[in-house]
Amino acid sequence: MMFTVKHTDGDSQARTGRLYTPHGAVDTPVFMPVGTRASVKAMAPHQLLECGTQIVLANTYHLFLRPGDELISQIGGLHRFMGWDGPILTDSGGFQVFSLADFCRVDDEGVTFRSHIDGSEHRLTPSRAVKIQQNLGADIIMCLDECPDAGADGHSLRKAVERTTDWARECAQAHHRDDQALFGIVQGGTDLQLRRRHLEQMMEIGFEGYALGGLSVGEPKHRMYRVIRKITPLMPADAPRYLMGVGTPDAVIEAIAAGVDMFDCVHATRIARHGRVMTSGGPLTVRNAPYADDPRPLDEECCCRVCRQFSRAYIRHLIKSDELLAYHLTTYHNLWFMHRMMAAARQAILRGEFDRWRRIFYRRYYGEDPPAD
Amino acid sequence: MMFTVKHTDGDSQARTGRLYTPHGAVDTPVFMPVGTRASVKAMAPHQLLECGTQIVLANTYHLFLRPGDELISQIGGLHRFMGWDGPILTDSGGFQVFSLADFCRVDDEGVTFRSHIDGSEHRLTPSRAVKIQQNLGADIIMCLDECPDAGADGHSLRKAVERTTDWARECAQAHHRDDQALFGIVQGGTDLQLRRRHLEQMMEIGFEGYALGGLSVGEPKHRMYRVIRKITPLMPADAPRYLMGVGTPDAVIEAIAAGVDMFDCVHATRIARHGRVMTSGGPLTVRNAPYADDPRPLDEECCCRVCRQFSRAYIRHLIKSDELLAYHLTTYHNLWFMHRMMAAARQAILRGEFDRWRRIFYRRYYGEDPPAD
Repeated sequence: MMFTVKHTDGDSQARTGRLYTPHGAVDTPVFMPVGTRASVKAMAPHQLLECGTQIVLANTYHLFLRPGDELISQIGGLHRFMGWDGPILTDSGGFQVFSLADFCRVDDEGVTFRSHIDGSEHRLTPSRAVKIQQNLGADIIMCLDECPDAGADGHSLRKAVERTTDWARECAQAHHRDDQALFGIVQGGTDLQLRRRHLEQMMEIGFEGYALGGLSVGEPKHRMYRVIRKITPLMPADAPRYLMGVGTPDAVIEAIAAGVDMFDCVHATRIARHGRVMTSGGPLTVRNAPYADDPRPLDEECCCRVCRQFSRAYIRHLIKSDELLAYHLTTYHNLWFMHRMMAAARQAILRGEFDRWRRIFYRRYYGEDPPAD
Repeated sequence: MMFTVKHTDGDSQARTGRLYTPHGAVDTPVFMPVGTRASVKAMAPHQLLECGTQIVLANTYHLFLRPGDELISQIGGLHRFMGWDGPILTDSGGFQVFSLADFCRVDDEGVTFRSHIDGSEHRLTPSRAVKIQQNLGADIIMCLDECPDAGADGHSLRKAVERTTDWARECAQAHHRDDQALFGIVQGGTDLQLRRRHLEQMMEIGFEGYALGGLSVGEPKHRMYRVIRKITPLMPADAPRYLMGVGTPDAVIEAIAAGVDMFDCVHATRIARHGRVMTSGGPLTVRNAPYADDPRPLDEECCCRVCRQFSRAYIRHLIKSDELLAYHLTTYHNLWFMHRMMAAARQAILRGEFDRWRRIFYRRYYGEDPPAD
């Protein structure tokens, strides 16, 4: 993997660059749609390409449980399995173990948990997490980390950071596929001192990219922004910086301003399945009654296939009738919107006008100014 | 509307022709996917085109109840509403009233029923059925008919035929849009004499096309075949012949042999959503365990997008994980299969080798010879 920063904005830390992977290049900042179970819900791979997707995230936890990483390896790896020839990033499985498993017990060597599907017991260790991700064969893989929730006390946070460092060291040792890049994850909740210390420890081990984990897990937004603004600039400038699990337009834009390069989130695709879409003028709940006879497209300024062909009235009808096509159309549009937003951000950075673009976007989308630093 | 027969097979009544509609031409024999609620389930219009769909059927009953034919008219008609620019056929709503409505009472003037969605009471008369279909704006519309089930006694059958003739006359009077063709429906159950008499009555009124209704409603297959074989050749040779609600490969092929030009059925799309696909070697239940690690495409001889890109293992995984993409992929493949089968039938008729093709298809798909006449 290779990463080059092409341009850094004048007034902010925002930067645009290019990430080269064995399955193609990715322009950053980039938004990665989430293909939890080896499928971005309601989207075929060529439709992802069509709407601007450059790289897809898949969840190790889900794929490990079903259909199993060994089966995927046997079929020829995740790219072939899901028919997506572009870059893929897999998470370590840790976050889902902590948040989804029926039962989970963490110790210094790893975590034991029960499958949320059938209750079967499994164990995930740092080297096992790497091994599973090697079987899946993504271009970018993540270290196993312990991700405490927003309410964790100081002791738990420190303990989690300690374990995450130990585990990261083990992951780095287990990592040996040349065609995969291993990223480290920085934890520490909203404790800036702890975050800084953890980042230093991770940089000491040395990774091809660095991620901020444990954010957007329930803490107030301004505290999340503070961590992002203070910690991102301390990360190595020549490696990609990845903010995990964040994907609402406001948070993405604030993080870009702080120098983040990569994002993933289910937000855009999940709200789509609830009949909510993103438009130039802000979010719109197309399933609501006022749109029943609205002949306009979801977004009058959008030129995606959905907006060129279908009315709000039709899409609302599909949602009310529970037609599968509804979820495809709203998902397609929302992904197009996110990818267009990222492309606009990249252009603004190239022109050295990121802050101006950010203010215009915020006013149109949220009807207010962006938060002060 | 214009219809020309290009070629009739040597050994059978099979014929191939072309139907010209205001929204384009259709090569016959043709299979029409069913877009019940203005959407062929899990398929976007451009995907329908891609897999070979020439004309789509939509259900008047469903669209009348939701979102309403007037709303669709206001948006610009069904073509614009559903984003499908090709030919559309709408049924009269009668069949669904008799089979789906919570309550339905038929009298000589029409039928009163309660919506299966909200219990509201509605009335459908022949002129109302035409009016609703005018609002929808399909290229081909159908007369309101009474469709008795397979267990109906002689008296009910005769009464239904009588009403269907009266109603057809009223429909013909109410019909006045030059850009719509009105088809008559022949009823009479499996009583050949009654069928013949009814066909004569309908031909006396005169329609732009003739349909066989009330078949595949529970009667034994050989009795259905007998009606199709005996009645189809009596229909006007210069008008399209449409067998309603029939769409399994065997029945379609037998009906083509008898001279039928048009088919519609939910079979191909419905079994797809249950994880069953059609292949050159016969049906295959890809959701079954043996396909969990099968790297082959659904059909090794198929060159559709799905078969070129995905394995049975992946599609089974999507089905087991209840991923929306599963239903799109299996539906796409099954429609491709049906449209390819129809294209092969048309080619065989042109070559004067329909019966040979039919035997080969039957042996490969069903592992046996076609039924004797």
